[in-house]
Amino acid sequence: MTHARRMIETNPNEAAVDAEALVECIEACFDCAQSCTACADACIGEGDLQMLARCIRLCLDCAEVCEATGKIMSRQTAFDAEMARAALEACAQACRLCGDECEQHAEHMEHCRVCAEACRRCESACNNVLSAINT
Amino acid sequence: MTHARRMIETNPNEAAVDAEALVECIEACFDCAQSCTACADACIGEGDLQMLARCIRLCLDCAEVCEATGKIMSRQTAFDAEMARAALEACAQACRLCGDECEQHAEHMEHCRVCAEACRRCESACNNVLSAINT
Amino acid sequence: MTHARRMIETNPNEAAVDAEALVECIEACFDCAQSCTACADACIGEGDLQMLARCIRLCLDCAEVCEATGKIMSRQTAFDAEMARAALEACAQACRLCGDECEQHAEHMEHCRVCAEACRRCESACNNVLSAINT
Amino acid sequence: MTHARRMIETNPNEAAVDAEALVECIEACFDCAQSCTACADACIGEGDLQMLARCIRLCLDCAEVCEATGKIMSRQTAFDAEMARAALEACAQACRLCGDECEQHAEHMEHCRVCAEACRRCESACNNVLSAINT
Repeated sequence: MTHARRMIETNPNEAAVDAEALVECIEACFDCAQSCTACADACIGEGDLQMLARCIRLCLDCAEVCEATGKIMSRQTAFDAEMARAALEACAQACRLCGDECEQHAEHMEHCRVCAEACRRCESACNNVLSAINT
Repeated sequence: MTHARRMIETNPNEAAVDAEALVECIEACFDCAQSCTACADACIGEGDLQMLARCIRLCLDCAEVCEATGKIMSRQTAFDAEMARAALEACAQACRLCGDECEQHAEHMEHCRVCAEACRRCESACNNVLSAINT
Repeated sequence: MTHARRMIETNPNEAAVDAEALVECIEACFDCAQSCTACADACIGEGDLQMLARCIRLCLDCAEVCEATGKIMSRQTAFDAEMARAALEACAQACRLCGDECEQHAEHMEHCRVCAEACRRCESACNNVLSAINT
Repeated sequence: MTHARRMIETNPNEAAVDAEALVECIEACFDCAQSCTACADACIGEGDLQMLARCIRLCLDCAEVCEATGKIMSRQTAFDAEMARAALEACAQACRLCGDECEQHAEHMEHCRVCAEACRRCESACNNVLSAINT
């Protein structure tokens, strides 16, 4: 349970894009920031740096971008489409790269499978809001 | 829906504290970071700085601390009780201060009421994990 | 004084781009994250929300993107050009938007003038690293 | 070169504590966030997880706390001593733990020696502001 939907509805400024798409994007960003943080840690716990260095790195990077984007999309005052687009494009790209990498380890490491799922969801949620902004 | 529980279960290192308490703490931290970010924005949108400057400020501060704590508690490798305690104590305190402030505006601004709820939940979730660590 | 240069030099992996450009980019990102955080706060302190809501919002957004980018560029292990590019492009764009807005208030508010300077420096430092990556 | 001092001086609200101590604290927090991010990455690049897992973990945690504290201390509007104290205490503690760990590897890894230096500086800068607040 998150409070994202209620926060959007109670903001004095109306959401600049479809509220459903926005809620899903914000929740997916924070969830993906958490999953990627946890997956980097789990990969460090696995102990095979030869195989997992790239996964750790992309997970840490992706967590940062998701966090920033989740906070930017949480703001409805003085919405700026260019700022939103810049963040959402970076986030969709980060999730794509990180999701691809995690997927390669998904068969042998369940945390990478779960994290890839979080990345795919976030990539798709960002792309949905991007479509809504661009039209 | 978040992936926090699955990420904890699939980490090669067992959680240092009760998994239920940990999941709730992590989810509450990220949720509170989102609510506080959104509440600061909503307060700016209200336009009454005389009344809301302190609320905006504490919301922005609380969001930072919750974010940091949510990420720290997401790590299970080489768990350090002192580090966890430092973060959790700061987070419980930040949520208490921010929740108290939001509560004062809850009657007239629904976003402050919702945000206070997120702060209370997070304060309590941090305190629960603190108790589990200290025993 | 920062430790950025020494941290780059002592990393077991060589920097993927020119070290001078990288140090400048990392330092500019963290400096701009600080300036934008402080400028949003100063604008709230000014009390003229009618005029400054957009500035506050863009400063808060820009701070997030700079922070994420500064951390991503601080990593030299398993460097990924696509991830770096996504972050740097978002950061250069955020700094451009925020710098433009701050500049409009620079005549009357010195904190906006100083913050615009930090944004310009960071935008330019990100673009320099982008050029180095793309060639 | 950072813009921290100029941002403090141009804020419409006077700094709640000695400006020199505040500038040093803010700069040390952002610098330490960068060093710890880079040191975690360098440790991953070293490839000896047996020895460095704790160092990586504490560096990532410390970076989060420093970032949050640097942003909280950058705000001068509606200063709240309890919030500042909570953040500064967590930050001094995180820097102490991380600095101690890095110091243990300082002889063989220069990045840990440099990072320990950044941690010591930040711990001391936070403690200085704490003293100023408590008196």
